[in-house]
Amino acid sequence: MFKPPRGTRDYLPEEMWKRNWVIDRIREIFEAYGYEPLGTPAFESWEMLKLKSGEDVIREIYYFKDKSNRELGLRFEWTASLCRVVASHRELPKPFKRYAIGPVWRYERPSEKRLREFWQADVDIVGVADPIADAEVISVAVDALNNLGLKGFKVRINDRRILEAMVELLRLPRDRSLDIFRAIDKLNKIGVDGVRGELSKLGVAGEKADELLNLIDVRGEPDEKLGEVEESLKGSEIGLRGLKALRSLVEYAELFGFKRHLLLDISLARGLDYYTGQVFEVYLGDVSISIAAGGRYDELIQLYGGEPTPATGISLGVERIIAILQEIGALENLKLGAEVYVAPTSDSVRDKAVEIAQRLRRAGISTDLDMMGRTLSKQLEYAHRKGFRRVIIVGNRDLKRGGVSVRDMETGEQRFIPLEELVDYLSSHR
Amino acid sequence: MFKPPRGTRDYLPEEMWKRNWVIDRIREIFEAYGYEPLGTPAFESWEMLKLKSGEDVIREIYYFKDKSNRELGLRFEWTASLCRVVASHRELPKPFKRYAIGPVWRYERPSEKRLREFWQADVDIVGVADPIADAEVISVAVDALNNLGLKGFKVRINDRRILEAMVELLRLPRDRSLDIFRAIDKLNKIGVDGVRGELSKLGVAGEKADELLNLIDVRGEPDEKLGEVEESLKGSEIGLRGLKALRSLVEYAELFGFKRHLLLDISLARGLDYYTGQVFEVYLGDVSISIAAGGRYDELIQLYGGEPTPATGISLGVERIIAILQEIGALENLKLGAEVYVAPTSDSVRDKAVEIAQRLRRAGISTDLDMMGRTLSKQLEYAHRKGFRRVIIVGNRDLKRGGVSVRDMETGEQRFIPLEELVDYLSSHR
Repeated sequence: MFKPPRGTRDYLPEEMWKRNWVIDRIREIFEAYGYEPLGTPAFESWEMLKLKSGEDVIREIYYFKDKSNRELGLRFEWTASLCRVVASHRELPKPFKRYAIGPVWRYERPSEKRLREFWQADVDIVGVADPIADAEVISVAVDALNNLGLKGFKVRINDRRILEAMVELLRLPRDRSLDIFRAIDKLNKIGVDGVRGELSKLGVAGEKADELLNLIDVRGEPDEKLGEVEESLKGSEIGLRGLKALRSLVEYAELFGFKRHLLLDISLARGLDYYTGQVFEVYLGDVSISIAAGGRYDELIQLYGGEPTPATGISLGVERIIAILQEIGALENLKLGAEVYVAPTSDSVRDKAVEIAQRLRRAGISTDLDMMGRTLSKQLEYAHRKGFRRVIIVGNRDLKRGGVSVRDMETGEQRFIPLEELVDYLSSHR
Repeated sequence: MFKPPRGTRDYLPEEMWKRNWVIDRIREIFEAYGYEPLGTPAFESWEMLKLKSGEDVIREIYYFKDKSNRELGLRFEWTASLCRVVASHRELPKPFKRYAIGPVWRYERPSEKRLREFWQADVDIVGVADPIADAEVISVAVDALNNLGLKGFKVRINDRRILEAMVELLRLPRDRSLDIFRAIDKLNKIGVDGVRGELSKLGVAGEKADELLNLIDVRGEPDEKLGEVEESLKGSEIGLRGLKALRSLVEYAELFGFKRHLLLDISLARGLDYYTGQVFEVYLGDVSISIAAGGRYDELIQLYGGEPTPATGISLGVERIIAILQEIGALENLKLGAEVYVAPTSDSVRDKAVEIAQRLRRAGISTDLDMMGRTLSKQLEYAHRKGFRRVIIVGNRDLKRGGVSVRDMETGEQRFIPLEELVDYLSSHR
């Protein structure tokens, strides 16, 4: 028997209805905020994919050659393709606010929580340098999570420039700053001792490492902690630019209405190399598992051959969000999928049953119909198993009276409805 | 500058809104008919992909190895994955009616009309041998096309068993019947002489070829032509089974309400090897370009290791449908995308503008907001260019009176609306 390839999986209908519901709710919010869809291919040229990626990421890309020996790779996130499009379509009006929702692929060690094919739902704003853009993309993520019924999540924020200032102040090797950020970023996964080990490999050990770990050990309400950070920056120009951006972001958060979710966390670095300013991560419960994350990348579009263009964005991890929604039971009582099942009681009324089913479908009522010539009790069993909410029993006696029996599968209640009232009845009793 | 890989393309927002609209309208009908979504990976094991495919198809699969040297390939259609799932999940209640909408990939010679990445929207019914199932999947395709505003399309139908009977009657080499079907299938693309050439390569030449071409040269209203076909079958058992299925299909077509679209065409073979009975193709205008196609494949699930299970399905070609909709201008006057743009007249009212935008978004009104601090006239220019239907002008004078000015971008009309009435006003004037 064939299986889906390692690290990938199938989603049977019961699960897939829920997935689609989650994705639709996310898209709803993306569109409410005025983001526009952009379509890009599932694979891109290898040269382009590896351009902005550190070694770690390149190792995770599914690489292949087409039959003309072109080097290609499956997309491993959405940002590279966005930058390629923006760079080559200078006519696009700015700001350009785009969303993308779909699968990405990474060859990682698979586990229950980490698949090789997984969905990312992204919004990005291209062309706005002001932190209002960062505030808006965070607001989109917050509203999308709210729209799904999630509560109690936190948004950690930081600014890469504050970390850069610390590297400067401590006179750490500046050419290793990206490596240092990557090490810091693992704090929640491997702990302080783990990070100390990573730092020492980078030549940051002893007192220096202690000082660094001490400087980044700031976490709390932004209003309470930003002053403390300012002091530790000791007038560093780049650090103060980062601080100013964060202050502005916090002010906008108040206006956008998500300030209560914010948590300043100076140890937040984000693993990707291309961030230039604010970075953010949304988590719920376990701080080491982010359900959405992003940041500002003001130099990336230029790297792809475009004009220097500020940009920021956030990416929601669809599988992780679904996993949490499932844990809290938020996907249980949704009325998804099958609505009405039309059950003819004998072959002599099959024609009539088809006509009724067609009428309901054309009225937009999700309707299935027996196609097996099964007995009524078998049909009811099937309808129950598949979770249909109503069964329309089509029988000769009822038809002579000009109607059918509608059975509510939850209550077992059954009532006669004249044919001409059927669509109205079903539409108003969903 | 980087480009999308050869044979693939980007879809900028203007086009992407329309694509999404088309896909949503198709999904609407799929779900109205009670089909359920199934999720399968973008790539499958190479062994599985090539199992059911002829040489031609195998050559078109994007093949690659993952970093553990697993042989994989991108899906080139949806049916193989469906059969894999059905074969390995015997617990799925039958009938199993599933839909799938998404990209597939084929390494073909690319042209304007033929991309290497394109979308297929499929419905299939697993577990029903009766032609009611074939009728239903055709009905789904017909209703989906109607739902998109397409008219005047035809559904060509045939049955593979009728062609098999002709191979038998003419004593053509039965082990070449699949090759013969593939040759016949090209009739609309390469003409009679072209097919004659292909047939002669298969050892079918001269009088035999004439006779075959004559036998399959039947096209017209099913009610008129089925009698003629019956005569030419000269009592062949397999042929009469095919004929009976077609007759039943035509009867159901009447009930389902799409009989006027049917066209019996005995030269219709469909290229794929796995069809066992009825085959169908939907076209509009150019008969050589199908916009939807499918057929019955009663032996395929067994081939994937499952129990013998009858199955049928149809696949809609999303790009071809969009191309036709564009040609007839059906995608022009849709109200898609951007709805409301909030324009603060100065920095002093920016905070208020953000609040207003947030209120509209949370009421489900698609809303964008100036983030650049542009002048009002620049903002109106941008809003016009992006096609926003309404601009909310937020200014100090109006705010003092407790409201804003709403400008209709089509008529240029502008009116004062109190803030507490804004959501209602915009919702009722879409």
